[in-house]
Amino acid sequence: MDEHEIDAVRALLQSHPRPASLAERRQRLDLVAADDPIAPDIQFKHQMVGTIEAEWSLATGSDSTKTLLFFHGGGYCSGSIQSHRRMVAETGRAAGVRTLALGYRLAPENPFPAALDDALAAFEFLLAQGVPSASLAIGGDSAGGGLTLATMIRLRDAGRPLPGCAWLVSPWVDLEMAGASMDEKAAIDPLIHRDYLEELAGAYLGRTSAREPLVSPLHADLAGLPPILIQVGSAETLLDDAVRIARRLGAVDIATNLEIWPHMIHAWHLWAARLTSGREAIASAGAFINRHLAT
Amino acid sequence: MDEHEIDAVRALLQSHPRPASLAERRQRLDLVAADDPIAPDIQFKHQMVGTIEAEWSLATGSDSTKTLLFFHGGGYCSGSIQSHRRMVAETGRAAGVRTLALGYRLAPENPFPAALDDALAAFEFLLAQGVPSASLAIGGDSAGGGLTLATMIRLRDAGRPLPGCAWLVSPWVDLEMAGASMDEKAAIDPLIHRDYLEELAGAYLGRTSAREPLVSPLHADLAGLPPILIQVGSAETLLDDAVRIARRLGAVDIATNLEIWPHMIHAWHLWAARLTSGREAIASAGAFINRHLAT
Repeated sequence: MDEHEIDAVRALLQSHPRPASLAERRQRLDLVAADDPIAPDIQFKHQMVGTIEAEWSLATGSDSTKTLLFFHGGGYCSGSIQSHRRMVAETGRAAGVRTLALGYRLAPENPFPAALDDALAAFEFLLAQGVPSASLAIGGDSAGGGLTLATMIRLRDAGRPLPGCAWLVSPWVDLEMAGASMDEKAAIDPLIHRDYLEELAGAYLGRTSAREPLVSPLHADLAGLPPILIQVGSAETLLDDAVRIARRLGAVDIATNLEIWPHMIHAWHLWAARLTSGREAIASAGAFINRHLAT
Repeated sequence: MDEHEIDAVRALLQSHPRPASLAERRQRLDLVAADDPIAPDIQFKHQMVGTIEAEWSLATGSDSTKTLLFFHGGGYCSGSIQSHRRMVAETGRAAGVRTLALGYRLAPENPFPAALDDALAAFEFLLAQGVPSASLAIGGDSAGGGLTLATMIRLRDAGRPLPGCAWLVSPWVDLEMAGASMDEKAAIDPLIHRDYLEELAGAYLGRTSAREPLVSPLHADLAGLPPILIQVGSAETLLDDAVRIARRLGAVDIATNLEIWPHMIHAWHLWAARLTSGREAIASAGAFINRHLAT
């Protein structure tokens, strides 16, 4: 058990408290989440998807015919290709695939459905490049997990091909924050609390209801989605978002794996360089993605 | 997706409807669950644990220094070494370990805590044989899943060593049957319904409350248990027993994996010879057990 390791990450977070201004917050997530060095064998390549920035990664030995499309977290208001670069690239390595990380438009400048439109555009971009949907995984952490589900729901409803599997880390799927863990875990969670989420939800929602299925997939019809891996920490206010969406997915016959990782905090994969459980969770996600993508 | 396969298993079950008498019910579970041939390379050996019958299995190539202790299902009133022989032996093969299946005493002749006393005696028997607890996994299906948790709770409370990991298939952990899936899934579940469970619970409980943590581990303090894999089918009234116990385990920092298998029915591993998802679930359980046992 790496409780000492997670204590060190908690100390790192505490040394960079969340600032009040949006610009500083965005900078802070890049700072605290992108502090660890990137392995030198990973090749990165810039990519435009229409007007949206994206970035390829490919680790030595990975299969560039398989792709993980990734949507970063940050409550729809922050987070970036940079903040999640290491997490995404290392998951690509673990899965043996290339990755495409998307710098989708952020709220409040661009409320719902801007991020979702960008996510869909990136998926369609990959299909248009000739990537078979069965060789394509999609995933994301936090808001990016919700975006992953919303993307698949929109694809399904439009009769478009679905990815071979999906991967959700600490997903935020209920913008009403109705899970019991929202209060139960408030004292132990160093990152995510109700008042902060309410602010983010307000920025993303604009006039959209928090019960809209495409912003809160907990309320969506989830039938027909591909196999899904959900990973969540036990020290998260969002624990019950993960548990409840797993239950709802499973109940409509979606192959669903839920992993609850002891003592881990929101999107702990970001600090995998410092956390044994971060590296193990990435390895587990990689194995899941690899197993579910067609060759 | 093997929906045709599961339909064939449903037809098999329908051709052997559950009889009214206890003796015939016990016979029926042996009939419907033990219909498929056992692989010829597996060595079985009879074992007495005190006055209780047990059976070793060892598949070619497995490591006899690691052990899976298994508690069969059957609502504490039926099930046997025979009914679960194939499931247990094949899981041993998948994990690369030997197994010890326990023919614990059944209700109503022997109500709570007879089964639990026998389960504990079997665990202590293995320790006394020199098996290190870290090389020992325990598991069970249905009532055997509840028994697995109760056994670990009693061991923990007595300051005894705990197994290296645990494996629960379609666990029955709430003898009050308060899960929403008890009614939601009643029409699709071919095996397990509220009235049947109430009869079984009555037989096992005697004068014990259904909220007693050692019969309904959903209400137990679960802290300190080892990593746990829970597997459940999406076509089960007991779906919410699995989801709720996963949530409670995870929330107290137990490494918890929950797998929900589309279209699968209660303890579908019993029909793994006929079900791709049965063989895959056994393979997943085997990998989990192998990963978590010390060499």
